[in-house]
Amino acid sequence: MNNEQCRILAVGAHPDDIEFGCGGILLAEAERGSVISLCLCSRGEAGTNGSPEEREAEARKAAKLLGAAIEFLDLGGDCRLDSSAANNLAVARTIRKERADVLLSPTAVRNQHPDHIVVSQLCRHAARLARYGGLGELNEQSAHTIKHHFEYAITPEAEPPNDRVSLRIDIGAKFERWVELMECHQTQLRTRRYVDLQTARARSLGLEAGVEYAQVLFPTADFLIANLDDLPLSVRLF
Amino acid sequence: MNNEQCRILAVGAHPDDIEFGCGGILLAEAERGSVISLCLCSRGEAGTNGSPEEREAEARKAAKLLGAAIEFLDLGGDCRLDSSAANNLAVARTIRKERADVLLSPTAVRNQHPDHIVVSQLCRHAARLARYGGLGELNEQSAHTIKHHFEYAITPEAEPPNDRVSLRIDIGAKFERWVELMECHQTQLRTRRYVDLQTARARSLGLEAGVEYAQVLFPTADFLIANLDDLPLSVRLF
Amino acid sequence: MNNEQCRILAVGAHPDDIEFGCGGILLAEAERGSVISLCLCSRGEAGTNGSPEEREAEARKAAKLLGAAIEFLDLGGDCRLDSSAANNLAVARTIRKERADVLLSPTAVRNQHPDHIVVSQLCRHAARLARYGGLGELNEQSAHTIKHHFEYAITPEAEPPNDRVSLRIDIGAKFERWVELMECHQTQLRTRRYVDLQTARARSLGLEAGVEYAQVLFPTADFLIANLDDLPLSVRLF
Amino acid sequence: MNNEQCRILAVGAHPDDIEFGCGGILLAEAERGSVISLCLCSRGEAGTNGSPEEREAEARKAAKLLGAAIEFLDLGGDCRLDSSAANNLAVARTIRKERADVLLSPTAVRNQHPDHIVVSQLCRHAARLARYGGLGELNEQSAHTIKHHFEYAITPEAEPPNDRVSLRIDIGAKFERWVELMECHQTQLRTRRYVDLQTARARSLGLEAGVEYAQVLFPTADFLIANLDDLPLSVRLF
Amino acid sequence: MNNEQCRILAVGAHPDDIEFGCGGILLAEAERGSVISLCLCSRGEAGTNGSPEEREAEARKAAKLLGAAIEFLDLGGDCRLDSSAANNLAVARTIRKERADVLLSPTAVRNQHPDHIVVSQLCRHAARLARYGGLGELNEQSAHTIKHHFEYAITPEAEPPNDRVSLRIDIGAKFERWVELMECHQTQLRTRRYVDLQTARARSLGLEAGVEYAQVLFPTADFLIANLDDLPLSVRLF
Amino acid sequence: MNNEQCRILAVGAHPDDIEFGCGGILLAEAERGSVISLCLCSRGEAGTNGSPEEREAEARKAAKLLGAAIEFLDLGGDCRLDSSAANNLAVARTIRKERADVLLSPTAVRNQHPDHIVVSQLCRHAARLARYGGLGELNEQSAHTIKHHFEYAITPEAEPPNDRVSLRIDIGAKFERWVELMECHQTQLRTRRYVDLQTARARSLGLEAGVEYAQVLFPTADFLIANLDDLPLSVRLF
Repeated sequence: MNNEQCRILAVGAHPDDIEFGCGGILLAEAERGSVISLCLCSRGEAGTNGSPEEREAEARKAAKLLGAAIEFLDLGGDCRLDSSAANNLAVARTIRKERADVLLSPTAVRNQHPDHIVVSQLCRHAARLARYGGLGELNEQSAHTIKHHFEYAITPEAEPPNDRVSLRIDIGAKFERWVELMECHQTQLRTRRYVDLQTARARSLGLEAGVEYAQVLFPTADFLIANLDDLPLSVRLF
Repeated sequence: MNNEQCRILAVGAHPDDIEFGCGGILLAEAERGSVISLCLCSRGEAGTNGSPEEREAEARKAAKLLGAAIEFLDLGGDCRLDSSAANNLAVARTIRKERADVLLSPTAVRNQHPDHIVVSQLCRHAARLARYGGLGELNEQSAHTIKHHFEYAITPEAEPPNDRVSLRIDIGAKFERWVELMECHQTQLRTRRYVDLQTARARSLGLEAGVEYAQVLFPTADFLIANLDDLPLSVRLF
Repeated sequence: MNNEQCRILAVGAHPDDIEFGCGGILLAEAERGSVISLCLCSRGEAGTNGSPEEREAEARKAAKLLGAAIEFLDLGGDCRLDSSAANNLAVARTIRKERADVLLSPTAVRNQHPDHIVVSQLCRHAARLARYGGLGELNEQSAHTIKHHFEYAITPEAEPPNDRVSLRIDIGAKFERWVELMECHQTQLRTRRYVDLQTARARSLGLEAGVEYAQVLFPTADFLIANLDDLPLSVRLF
Repeated sequence: MNNEQCRILAVGAHPDDIEFGCGGILLAEAERGSVISLCLCSRGEAGTNGSPEEREAEARKAAKLLGAAIEFLDLGGDCRLDSSAANNLAVARTIRKERADVLLSPTAVRNQHPDHIVVSQLCRHAARLARYGGLGELNEQSAHTIKHHFEYAITPEAEPPNDRVSLRIDIGAKFERWVELMECHQTQLRTRRYVDLQTARARSLGLEAGVEYAQVLFPTADFLIANLDDLPLSVRLF
Repeated sequence: MNNEQCRILAVGAHPDDIEFGCGGILLAEAERGSVISLCLCSRGEAGTNGSPEEREAEARKAAKLLGAAIEFLDLGGDCRLDSSAANNLAVARTIRKERADVLLSPTAVRNQHPDHIVVSQLCRHAARLARYGGLGELNEQSAHTIKHHFEYAITPEAEPPNDRVSLRIDIGAKFERWVELMECHQTQLRTRRYVDLQTARARSLGLEAGVEYAQVLFPTADFLIANLDDLPLSVRLF
Repeated sequence: MNNEQCRILAVGAHPDDIEFGCGGILLAEAERGSVISLCLCSRGEAGTNGSPEEREAEARKAAKLLGAAIEFLDLGGDCRLDSSAANNLAVARTIRKERADVLLSPTAVRNQHPDHIVVSQLCRHAARLARYGGLGELNEQSAHTIKHHFEYAITPEAEPPNDRVSLRIDIGAKFERWVELMECHQTQLRTRRYVDLQTARARSLGLEAGVEYAQVLFPTADFLIANLDDLPLSVRLF
């Protein structure tokens, strides 16, 4: 990517998905000056714990810690998201508005919350639609082409099969702030040990790569390089 | 990788595998100053066309064009390669001797010449063995850890399933010299149109990525990055 | 298949999908006397280049070159296609109307335009629905059972993993006319080099199989044979 | 294939593999005049029931029923087969000697007897080696290129994943003779109900395809066709 | 599971899916005292044979033989089922109402009736939604967490790839009653030999496992155990 | 399994594989009275740290903590293991001698130490060979059939794709003793943080399943059950 400020759009289905799935990465990006926007496709209305108002407040608090803008899309609400062309277009509108260089969205691995899978599909498709010139309802904003689309896994089960190449991002320097970020979602921590789960996962992913903690992103496209010099480090420790 | 000269070791089963599968990439690397070594695990003794002497001469001519060192390992000869611990160690010895930063080897996709699959496995395993300190028979050279291991596909059929992320290397600027490199293997071009096949493949791989010609490498390990800024371009054209 | 004229229905999401993905095959089929119908699920309304009217005109021009009938289904328009039961039924109606022996539709490989994936699913399902007797809204036409359903890949990325058996169709004798067919879609060639991409792909697919140019179809069902004599040639060249 | 007599070489690891896995197919081929050769890579020396002499006699009896030639390769004996270059060459020698048009061998699905997997690999590789001109130890016979290579599954568990296209061969007319063929292997039927298992499998495979009984072959290569007319029936019943 | 009576909810798309896909298992469960409920997502309105009234009557007759409750969900009718959030919620309501311990639903393998795939997805998602406390429209019933979710395959083609671990359930003692159960669906047996197909499949699945007849279920989640003693028998016969 | 004492044979390539990959499980099994034997296929001769004597001593110390018997097979030594019929037989001899009910061996996932893959294959095959009556060189011991074969993953990368059903074993009550067990391998902990890696992994695997720590086994065969009551708990938490 060029040397300008990188614009990152992270999309989640529920108010806590982004922080759990790639919060440490966003903290690292924020520090190096990337402009970060969060887009949430529900207010977590279906959760056993926390009212939609509480959950929105928790997400806004986390966004503030991140120094990120935040938007809530109304696509019908938690557990009511459909993988439809209309929703593809709604997400494409956000991509255009944010002029995102990098799009982060959940993986589509099937054994997870249906909303995660739907949002994964919406983002994958929206990234294409955002660049087509003939979509009248999107024309408030000019067409826009993202540079990268990576997927994050909200839970360990949502990680794609391990024969796919992934990107480990060293979040060791941001670990405490990432825990703080996750702990913004107090209502969700009442009955599930999400923070423990995510930190154990990040510990395992990091130690495999020779660092203290790492989060992981999954590329959705090939890379084009001019020389092997353009490549980051390979993880070849164990 | 650091800014020092990059040392690349490309391993092939037969005298023409490397030029067909990743010759354009090596030309690009040679130009930017990488030190290149070729290691061939046979002299193509089993081929219908070309004596082993002719084929060795063709390979040496190609190596010269590349400015590369060349070594022939005797592992029993063409069509007689076995995936054995002894052969793993023989390749590991070469890796140590060359102090390779980058190892390039064939893919292990099953529908191809058995020697290609064997050499793929030998290289995958040798890259580990090269770094272990307790292997007496390798001790002429100190243990060595490579930085990257990528696989190249000798034919289109040898490319792994296309849901795996690959690296496209722009070889447009080297296209004519790559053809010249492949044409060193005159004996093999008598009955098979390899050059046509490879250039059509490189054209298709390149146009998909928005360049004139590309060859492709398949990573064997995850990447570790500090920031998304560390990443090369994504191929997102069609 | 029996010796009667074969009826082929090719379905595409956008006005150029069919010509790019299987145009050469249709030219070969037309020559041997097959009756060909094209069914397009949009007018390409979302494209950056070309108005819907221009794109419809381009598709009609290509159909004329093919000697094929052409139908435009209104399923909401380009980028607005949904994988729904209602749309399954709409495609089933076309299958019944055309009394198709062979159905050709896009693959469902996930890394492509969402409309391609949707049309793939619609066709797969419609082929079943067309044969059920109890669907009132389809009863203008009697139930109909197709004989074959094959998928074509609109781009190289849309080809399924290469461990699946595919059918290569020799289109060498039709190459120039196929280029002419693709060039009907002038508006789409302004910013993307589709013709170059498709011809490079067909060249690579053909040379692998020992012919000049080939396109490829992917079966969706097993074959039933009485003897091994019933089988076409295997591609066993490299 | 051309109209001449078809030469089929079926290879098995143990004396009963071929009859169980593709015996009905061979009966149908024999009837239409194909020349059939069986090649067994052991005498079943490791079996709990039946001496090697008894098992060889059973295999010879079955070959006689089939009107097939039979050869026993000595590759070390039952449970002692290795996937080695030397064994690849031994099978290649048989392929050359038999001038096989069609090669039938076991699948390589991993959850089966190790000898089945080894013989699968030997055959896959031998089919290539048979055609290379430079292999001195094979030169008693001139190089030979097979036309087709299909795999058969010795047990239901040995069938590859069902998203791969397979060939169902109608063996209804040969059912009783197939049972007779399998029953030649009396020593093996003492403790395992192989005949029941195979007939239930053939019944299920057949009824799915609309016939009484079928066996199944798995292609190892793409098919090249000139027209869709060249294709056998698709199985599209349920 | 605890020692209390087990509550099983089997969901099907059409009136005969459950009996064909897991009827023998339900008979075995009924005998040991499990409480069984059937939920059908259509009345088979699209079938060539049988009116919706006849088909409902057939299903009720089968339910009576099973001693099972039966419910018909109206989700738009046969061939009109959509994979939507609204339908997920409808199935979740049934799961809550039935307080199911075990949920049985069709597999999502893609080469089958579209309704089977849709119902598979609805059940997978509904099992999650049933346990969330914040879904207003489900609040007539309190949130409910199932203990197990298994998938059954309606046809042999609907079985997932055979490298996935499955559960074989011995239905030998229930075989005749299972045939009787399937034969309740007389309208469907006029043109397709479903009973023959299913019994041949159950025979093959059973003999592989050393019993006379078996049906198969596919787990959707990992198992948690305290000791290896907690595990059922492994199938290790052939 | 029956109520008698369960006999468990765990096989590893190197002296520390078993403790790292399934040590916690073995501790739980030892406590409930299972008889445990360890079989190591090398003395870790190739390691950078620790002499073979030191490593053997570490393994014996760990075996003592486990109350397990321990055997070292000489198959050529660390990094020199081959997947051969002869080695299959050597492992089969150990299975017979130990009269194992349960066999535990490494997974065969390809991105790991070559010895791990070889030992995985040896064990898979040996489990079959152990039960065949006709293998003369094994006849010191009568033929023996194991009841279960499960695979353990030595590193996180060695876990098979997560769409396979796995068994999570709760090792929370054994956590401290497991750490102690791993710490027997002091020479290996000098340069790699294996204990940290394994405990982070067990923490993640456990929290996903609702317990403090878990290790995981991968079944190699289907299960046969009479009733759904025979099944352990499903992991359905997140």
